[in-house]
Amino acid sequence: MALDWQQRRSGCPISCSLDLLGDKWSLLIVRDMVFVGKRYFKEFLSSDEGIASNILADRLQRLEVTGIIAKRSDPDSGRQMLYSLTEKGIALIPILVELVCWGALFDGAPDADPRAVKRIMKDKPSFIQKLVDGCRRG
Amino acid sequence: MALDWQQRRSGCPISCSLDLLGDKWSLLIVRDMVFVGKRYFKEFLSSDEGIASNILADRLQRLEVTGIIAKRSDPDSGRQMLYSLTEKGIALIPILVELVCWGALFDGAPDADPRAVKRIMKDKPSFIQKLVDGCRRG
Repeated sequence: MALDWQQRRSGCPISCSLDLLGDKWSLLIVRDMVFVGKRYFKEFLSSDEGIASNILADRLQRLEVTGIIAKRSDPDSGRQMLYSLTEKGIALIPILVELVCWGALFDGAPDADPRAVKRIMKDKPSFIQKLVDGCRRG
Repeated sequence: MALDWQQRRSGCPISCSLDLLGDKWSLLIVRDMVFVGKRYFKEFLSSDEGIASNILADRLQRLEVTGIIAKRSDPDSGRQMLYSLTEKGIALIPILVELVCWGALFDGAPDADPRAVKRIMKDKPSFIQKLVDGCRRG
């Protein structure tokens, strides 16, 4: 049976996207994978925003069920799980980049570097491609 | 005193953006203004996703407090309120366009027209500009 958050409210692509991504935490986990290269539960738990471990576990499960991330045993340490982005997850990078720009330019995010954001704005496609390549290399 | 949803979890621009936009409804209201030209409470209430009127009232208030939309009395009917996007709200259009593309191409949104999405992907900046111009004309 589909869980509540797996049910679509409508067929609109924006609504479908928000059915999966419309919460405060899911895209922060993807952010940590894209920009910081995090891969372990403990690494996500240590982010500045202070996600609670039960919420993190729930969001990781959702992201896995919806095909945005994949999970496997860490070959170096069988007890730990290793998370990585699928192509569906990597395809979220343009959304993250737009959230960076909007947060920096229109919401006065304290940690945003205006010069870095201006460089991104000048050539978003190549900035996005670099991040995509980084994720694919793992 | 700042309300819970007005408090920043960190200074990261993605996190700041999600503090304001990270829920299932706020961006759907912005979507209705950008793509359908909705301006009245009753119009937002009638969207396919079936937003409850108390949630709609709450999200409209949040969007207004955070400077994404503006509210004024309808000059044609003083009793009704008229909502419009500010420049901060109009600047959300690139995020919406990326959510359209991702929902259509990677999440199989039923109402997405693949040919229309391919046309958007070919020239996102001009598609975005047309939407921006439409919002500014009101």
